[in-house]
Amino acid sequence: MDKFVKYIIKYNKDLDPVIDQVFDRDKKRLSQIAPVVEQFADDYKHFLKGGKKLRGSEIFLGYKMFGGKSKKMGLMASLVIEIVHSFLLIHDDFMDGDALRRGEPTMHKKYAKKYGDHFGESMAIDIGDEGCFLAFKLLNSLKLPRERLSKATQFFSDLLLEVGAGQALDLMYEEEKNLLEETVLRIHRYKTAGYTISGPLSIGALLAGASKKVLKPLEKFGIPVGVAFQIRDDELGMFSTEEQLGKPVDSDLKEGKITLLMVKALELARGDDKKFLKYAHGNQHLTLKEVERARQIIKDTGAYNYSHNKGRQLVEEGKKFIPQITKNKKDQEILGLLADFMIERKS
Amino acid sequence: MDKFVKYIIKYNKDLDPVIDQVFDRDKKRLSQIAPVVEQFADDYKHFLKGGKKLRGSEIFLGYKMFGGKSKKMGLMASLVIEIVHSFLLIHDDFMDGDALRRGEPTMHKKYAKKYGDHFGESMAIDIGDEGCFLAFKLLNSLKLPRERLSKATQFFSDLLLEVGAGQALDLMYEEEKNLLEETVLRIHRYKTAGYTISGPLSIGALLAGASKKVLKPLEKFGIPVGVAFQIRDDELGMFSTEEQLGKPVDSDLKEGKITLLMVKALELARGDDKKFLKYAHGNQHLTLKEVERARQIIKDTGAYNYSHNKGRQLVEEGKKFIPQITKNKKDQEILGLLADFMIERKS
Repeated sequence: MDKFVKYIIKYNKDLDPVIDQVFDRDKKRLSQIAPVVEQFADDYKHFLKGGKKLRGSEIFLGYKMFGGKSKKMGLMASLVIEIVHSFLLIHDDFMDGDALRRGEPTMHKKYAKKYGDHFGESMAIDIGDEGCFLAFKLLNSLKLPRERLSKATQFFSDLLLEVGAGQALDLMYEEEKNLLEETVLRIHRYKTAGYTISGPLSIGALLAGASKKVLKPLEKFGIPVGVAFQIRDDELGMFSTEEQLGKPVDSDLKEGKITLLMVKALELARGDDKKFLKYAHGNQHLTLKEVERARQIIKDTGAYNYSHNKGRQLVEEGKKFIPQITKNKKDQEILGLLADFMIERKS
Repeated sequence: MDKFVKYIIKYNKDLDPVIDQVFDRDKKRLSQIAPVVEQFADDYKHFLKGGKKLRGSEIFLGYKMFGGKSKKMGLMASLVIEIVHSFLLIHDDFMDGDALRRGEPTMHKKYAKKYGDHFGESMAIDIGDEGCFLAFKLLNSLKLPRERLSKATQFFSDLLLEVGAGQALDLMYEEEKNLLEETVLRIHRYKTAGYTISGPLSIGALLAGASKKVLKPLEKFGIPVGVAFQIRDDELGMFSTEEQLGKPVDSDLKEGKITLLMVKALELARGDDKKFLKYAHGNQHLTLKEVERARQIIKDTGAYNYSHNKGRQLVEEGKKFIPQITKNKKDQEILGLLADFMIERKS
């Protein structure tokens, strides 16, 4: 797994000047419209640079794995999904009511400091929209055969439509308190899984000129691994530290987020514990002690173990398809490391 | 002008089955993800059908004018900008805090009825995002030479980036109470003008295979006419009826919208009238009588006449460039009618 972490670190280092190049150009564009909006390019860049850039690293990986020759092209292409990812997070943070991300104020909170909450929210939505336009522009401007760009764009927009539908599902089910395991896994599937693993790998592959035949095994590999990614995300959201997470570890609980941990704990808990979990889930006013009690119940009922084992099992399920993706041993190894990382990562 | 209204009506009639086709397919996609999200496709379709579809009619016009042969292709291409326009309005309505559009609840208000304000706002943002993805997908999937699609996509994403920057300008200046004529015209220029006239005509032209040389005269024609469109929009926003406007006629005033009417009236008013306008602009709690007084001041100071003359002058300025766009007399005529419509329209 450490080897995959090293891969990500290396990728980030390589990507850094490409990010500067794209956003400095965008800053220039904005300055020509009016100096007062120049700042947005810097804000977006700063937000984007703060992330792990998992998805970008996977576009880059897919591109190289399927014969993409130019490193610069692979990096530029990979930035497309990172720009989109930032846009989705900026909108999500407003929808989830999150105040912090990566240890800093979320975009809507940042701008709220200037002229109040509604201004902050409006700016965050607008800046997010700008990110979306910029990503499609960047994708369309890659100097690659048009046929490849066309396939990748089609795949990419379908993928984003799926993410948006997954987000809607999440919003609906959260309100409806639909807390079935099937529901959690369905939300993870649409909101996260395709977009996190098979999606970026496939986009990289299509841009490198790979045949559409490769999409199926990439999906069979990436969907279960992507669901495991979200399972792990929710585990970290409940049991990590604020320092590592960059936001309060009680926010998922207080928001009433639908997680496998919570669904399973609610199913397994009995008596007062069950009552308490129902009281705690989605309760904005929990004390630290109450959060601690919820954590303890999630562990004691075996929900944490259940969740982690489920994630592990999904990762193993996905890994079986690696040999169908590529015959190259080194590429097979990195895909295996990537899959393990998704369920074992500490942040 | 009536001839242009007839043109729009005919276009809408032709577009209607194309809208059904695209959104019925989208509904099917959503139903496969989960039946609970099927409704969004219908909501989006309903929202889109309610509009005038000015911009779509212009893509269609530009496409035909520059040699586009297939009517079906022109209609399908024109739907791209109408989907985007609905998305932008759905987001804008939240940013502006508008409760009504076209006589019906705005998207965030509609969904707020189900599970409260924040749910409504989140759904509106998500549904808007979905619209954006759908538009880029539709554009990319048009069966036209890739080179044309590429040019049109580049133009389109640049255009949307400009709109987003214009929206940010609007949000900033509204808070800063920057009420200069130069400011209003700059916001109109970036937020509205390119996107409303020259943008759609150019996209249609590029999709029909026109050379890039045509973009310059289209811009010289479309930018002043597009600014006039917004000037007229603000006039209707203050002096139309709720029935014609589909929303309260006092909402621009109460929101503190930066309009040429208001900027000019503030400049020209004296004494108590000036004080009153300052009190009224951006005041959510105005009485009907106070709104009426603001209207009267805007007329009495000559601000309305100034605004309307400015719009008329811009339209004439733009019309001078029509002969550079096309030598075809019939096309020249329709462009002239289009330009006049923008400043004379009643709704």
